[in-house]
Amino acid sequence: MPVPKPTLYPPFNIVRLSHVDYRVTDLAKSRAFYVDTLGLQVTDEDDSTIYLRAMEERGHHCITLIKADAPSVDVLGFKLYDEPDLDRAHDFFTSRDLPVEWIERPYQGRTLRTRDPWGIPLEFYVKMDRLPPIHQHYKLYNGVKPLRIDHFNMFSADVDASVGFYNDIGFRVTEYTEDDETGKCWAAWMHRKGGVHDVAFTNGTGPRLHHTAFWVPTPLNIIDLLDLMATTGWVANIERGPGRHGISNAFFLYVRDPDGHRIEIYCSDYQTVDPDLEPIRWSLTDPQRQTLWGAPAPRSWFEEGSLFDGATPQPSALKAQPIIAP
Amino acid sequence: MPVPKPTLYPPFNIVRLSHVDYRVTDLAKSRAFYVDTLGLQVTDEDDSTIYLRAMEERGHHCITLIKADAPSVDVLGFKLYDEPDLDRAHDFFTSRDLPVEWIERPYQGRTLRTRDPWGIPLEFYVKMDRLPPIHQHYKLYNGVKPLRIDHFNMFSADVDASVGFYNDIGFRVTEYTEDDETGKCWAAWMHRKGGVHDVAFTNGTGPRLHHTAFWVPTPLNIIDLLDLMATTGWVANIERGPGRHGISNAFFLYVRDPDGHRIEIYCSDYQTVDPDLEPIRWSLTDPQRQTLWGAPAPRSWFEEGSLFDGATPQPSALKAQPIIAP
Amino acid sequence: MPVPKPTLYPPFNIVRLSHVDYRVTDLAKSRAFYVDTLGLQVTDEDDSTIYLRAMEERGHHCITLIKADAPSVDVLGFKLYDEPDLDRAHDFFTSRDLPVEWIERPYQGRTLRTRDPWGIPLEFYVKMDRLPPIHQHYKLYNGVKPLRIDHFNMFSADVDASVGFYNDIGFRVTEYTEDDETGKCWAAWMHRKGGVHDVAFTNGTGPRLHHTAFWVPTPLNIIDLLDLMATTGWVANIERGPGRHGISNAFFLYVRDPDGHRIEIYCSDYQTVDPDLEPIRWSLTDPQRQTLWGAPAPRSWFEEGSLFDGATPQPSALKAQPIIAP
Amino acid sequence: MPVPKPTLYPPFNIVRLSHVDYRVTDLAKSRAFYVDTLGLQVTDEDDSTIYLRAMEERGHHCITLIKADAPSVDVLGFKLYDEPDLDRAHDFFTSRDLPVEWIERPYQGRTLRTRDPWGIPLEFYVKMDRLPPIHQHYKLYNGVKPLRIDHFNMFSADVDASVGFYNDIGFRVTEYTEDDETGKCWAAWMHRKGGVHDVAFTNGTGPRLHHTAFWVPTPLNIIDLLDLMATTGWVANIERGPGRHGISNAFFLYVRDPDGHRIEIYCSDYQTVDPDLEPIRWSLTDPQRQTLWGAPAPRSWFEEGSLFDGATPQPSALKAQPIIAP
Ligand SMILES: [Ca+2]
Ligand SMILES: [Fe+2]
Ligand SMILES: [Fe+2]
Ligand SMILES: [Fe+2]
Ligand SMILES: [Fe+2]
Repeated sequence: MPVPKPTLYPPFNIVRLSHVDYRVTDLAKSRAFYVDTLGLQVTDEDDSTIYLRAMEERGHHCITLIKADAPSVDVLGFKLYDEPDLDRAHDFFTSRDLPVEWIERPYQGRTLRTRDPWGIPLEFYVKMDRLPPIHQHYKLYNGVKPLRIDHFNMFSADVDASVGFYNDIGFRVTEYTEDDETGKCWAAWMHRKGGVHDVAFTNGTGPRLHHTAFWVPTPLNIIDLLDLMATTGWVANIERGPGRHGISNAFFLYVRDPDGHRIEIYCSDYQTVDPDLEPIRWSLTDPQRQTLWGAPAPRSWFEEGSLFDGATPQPSALKAQPIIAP
Repeated sequence: MPVPKPTLYPPFNIVRLSHVDYRVTDLAKSRAFYVDTLGLQVTDEDDSTIYLRAMEERGHHCITLIKADAPSVDVLGFKLYDEPDLDRAHDFFTSRDLPVEWIERPYQGRTLRTRDPWGIPLEFYVKMDRLPPIHQHYKLYNGVKPLRIDHFNMFSADVDASVGFYNDIGFRVTEYTEDDETGKCWAAWMHRKGGVHDVAFTNGTGPRLHHTAFWVPTPLNIIDLLDLMATTGWVANIERGPGRHGISNAFFLYVRDPDGHRIEIYCSDYQTVDPDLEPIRWSLTDPQRQTLWGAPAPRSWFEEGSLFDGATPQPSALKAQPIIAP
Repeated sequence: MPVPKPTLYPPFNIVRLSHVDYRVTDLAKSRAFYVDTLGLQVTDEDDSTIYLRAMEERGHHCITLIKADAPSVDVLGFKLYDEPDLDRAHDFFTSRDLPVEWIERPYQGRTLRTRDPWGIPLEFYVKMDRLPPIHQHYKLYNGVKPLRIDHFNMFSADVDASVGFYNDIGFRVTEYTEDDETGKCWAAWMHRKGGVHDVAFTNGTGPRLHHTAFWVPTPLNIIDLLDLMATTGWVANIERGPGRHGISNAFFLYVRDPDGHRIEIYCSDYQTVDPDLEPIRWSLTDPQRQTLWGAPAPRSWFEEGSLFDGATPQPSALKAQPIIAP
Repeated sequence: MPVPKPTLYPPFNIVRLSHVDYRVTDLAKSRAFYVDTLGLQVTDEDDSTIYLRAMEERGHHCITLIKADAPSVDVLGFKLYDEPDLDRAHDFFTSRDLPVEWIERPYQGRTLRTRDPWGIPLEFYVKMDRLPPIHQHYKLYNGVKPLRIDHFNMFSADVDASVGFYNDIGFRVTEYTEDDETGKCWAAWMHRKGGVHDVAFTNGTGPRLHHTAFWVPTPLNIIDLLDLMATTGWVANIERGPGRHGISNAFFLYVRDPDGHRIEIYCSDYQTVDPDLEPIRWSLTDPQRQTLWGAPAPRSWFEEGSLFDGATPQPSALKAQPIIAP
């Protein structure tokens, strides 16, 4: 399937990805990872929940860690532009026979909880409590100096279908990988906020969350994190990288949190605000697609992901194989 | 005057700043500056004109250099979202009794030429010829490795009025400087594309163009440019920096082209896509406003600027003085 | 006076500069500066003294802070190669009619205390307590991430004479500034350990200590320190920079401690181990000598320095004027 | 065998490693690699030979490329301190029954050619033609911006014996890897010039040259080289990295030249001038020894090396296995 034409006038206006709620089994260990190692800032916490923001964010949180018996992903959150967009979103999901619910959420205004057609739990809101800026409180910068949440990457059992749905609600494809034999999409990167992506989909047993990414200033911050993790007991949590993606041209590192949730540290992609930006096509057999410098990703990177609450992953029909490290 | 409420539904949709046309007196010298020193890429040239783009841009050009008897600025260009936006822009400027004209421009589709209320020449278009990506052609990276045009900064004789007009057409204030005594705006930064600004206004004899800025990957690229300029005959063209702006938090350098047009090299500001982003207020007397690290700007930086064709600068009524280097 | 031929077989073997003892008036304030801001590591402390080392050093200390009524410099320390070198140093200083004394020093073996001909207090030792490496304890890296002490810079009332004396004891000139009119040395950089310098001399009322420098990994660490100092109450202690020296080619920043002792943060000079390395000559009138990028240093940088205990500064006979910021 | 005591007063004074002569099969291809890609500067060339230097070097060359039918290493060159050292070196190698010869070499003064006990061809000289500095000719900086040759790494069939011999001629061990079972050295790093090493030895079929390393300013230069090689046809020549070595703490990348000669790009090690510097011991089974961040090296990195002219490699008796990437 070719990449669909962008939806220039979507049914409701999504500004950007906003936050993810992770269920984690040991709140103290997760705090050691996200706060003491990555450098995210605690904005609220109690015995069951920790709210975190990155250094340039003014919204109350971009990650919520929730104590649970088993790790999973509770919801992916997105910020809408204006109050009427919430009602339009409600109508859109209703018209697609998808579950909708108005819920109460701490620190957020009116919130719509729904799911995409494959069961990924989504929530939309317009207002989240705003906090005073800390981006010039340099004493607080720590770990990898995370600036902001950047994107979600999800396994999808049918990437073409996922692209179609998210394209309908205004996400625009910037780059994609095609399986030369079948002409099907192996993976796609789609944005709202003007970078390479807010969401991406990769072929595999899905839906599952592949990773959440954070933006950092420069590749040197990623090297600093590697040095820190390597010498503070986290070396086994370094999964892949550092490297340059062919796709997106970003400099990356993948690490795993104590429950295996995968976090990407990311910088250096490019501006995509032009509505006529041409999507870049990559062949699945191009070894520089994953890593411009040629190194293949490890098997775990292709196979492991976080479960979404209430969604049952299905195997993908597309069996094309990417290049895996031997 | 307080900062006005943002116009969430502007009369037409500006995507981003796009390009500037500079009149220059010696095309070869300007080419040596912009191409051989800054590292911009030539996309077309003949005896009278040079078109340039930065490394991640796919539009045909972000600067046009036009041979002329005296230096000036011919026009500031902006990209609109969709064809109907062009007609709505035509209607808007007509309704404000501002001059409108449909013109032919090489490499651009339908183009509207107009002026703001103080005579700044503006042009709007939707389509510009798109070129193949070169952002992964690393052999071409050179000089400061400019990635994209970032913003225009203009002298205004009445910043409050300028802010009002540009706010009406959808630019949103991210930061501003207030004169504590009069409560008037000394300077303001306003964006469309999700960074700290596409346009900024500074109190002074205006309208004049203060500078055009380019985005680069990291502060080290700016240090590389300083080393290069310092050892290839351009040391006198280094005007201010490197430094960190208090406002915008960006890392900056100001250099002057052979005709005195001021170019800023810029990186590290922050994401501003949230429509409810709170503008940050600075006092004119805060010495860290200009440079977080405390060093004042030189007198030339406050006084010199490029003339716009067909616009006669007027002195500003606001006489508050910023901090100038002794 | 031309630069003297290097002394290939000096009377005793100095390995490198080692440490400086600063008298400071408020130990807590100095700790906040050197430990909390610069990131040096405390290796011992009590009510009157703090010992510090940098991240890659294995010797016990590179700075000692000593509580005192007035700020001054107690001594500059140098490490010798082997025990017989200590005795040879004793003989050399005795032969020059300079005061010699064997003293007890905490954490050091046999220590010779003496003075250069202008009264600068010097001490030489071979053994200092060695500490376990911490250069891979990345959790400890902080502030500017100082790696090691790099050099001392001193005001001298007769630079030619200072160069002559230090050349006799094996320091080799790498770069120097000459006053074109008189042919006299305005400044000189001299090394033992294979970098641009262990000691430097600058024309002025002397002897006084101009600054002590620390080596850091990259210019980005210096930018991090500027951001940190600018936002934690130390902005007035930023004196000059960042910039690139013409001389030494190093990237630099000068800051002042709470008592005015000047600290340079420094990186990027070059290797000088070749005994036939040709000294590089600079003219005093070359504006790129001080700062390759052209910015002049402030007046304080030329005039202010720390007193050495027991040495009375004399004005310099050489009245040539460097380029000072207006 | 424990690491031997350093030889504080060696039989002759080696200043540093100086140069390597590589035989290469296609001079144009090698030029494309070393000059156009790595950024080394040509100081002389004809149809059969190319001489290269790095950016801060003043000696005439650090690599010579010699056209040949098969790739090999002609000689490793070292600079001595003073003319008498050459005669003392002659006497030392004679006393060990090793071959000595005074030879003529372009751009070098009196030159002694000899071999170590396992046949590695060595040459020693005091004077090489000195060239004007280019380290501030920033227009010439290119590729990875190589500053200077840093070290040689060699396969040895008996590392303990190699360490013993090179220790006798003044090289001092800074770090080493021990096989816990046998107590034998698996690898060792030894210096003369004050960094972690001028020469290193690794257990394996030897003697063979494992790699020659170049020093660069920062990790970002290494990332620039990766991007350049990946997009100019050299992606298959990227062998290992980027990464941080546990040993030496350096940031590294290994690439292969068109004939398979291995080049390391290297930065960030530490100063080792203290004669009482304690060697750091690593266990062969420590996975962070090779790469602090945990990633194992590929099999080629352990098995492939360049032959020395006139030396026949022998298998190593020590069969302990390092950790190889699956
Ligand atoms: Ca004590
Ligand atoms: Fe990602
Ligand atoms: Fe600007
Ligand atoms: Fe200095
Ligand atoms: Fe190496």
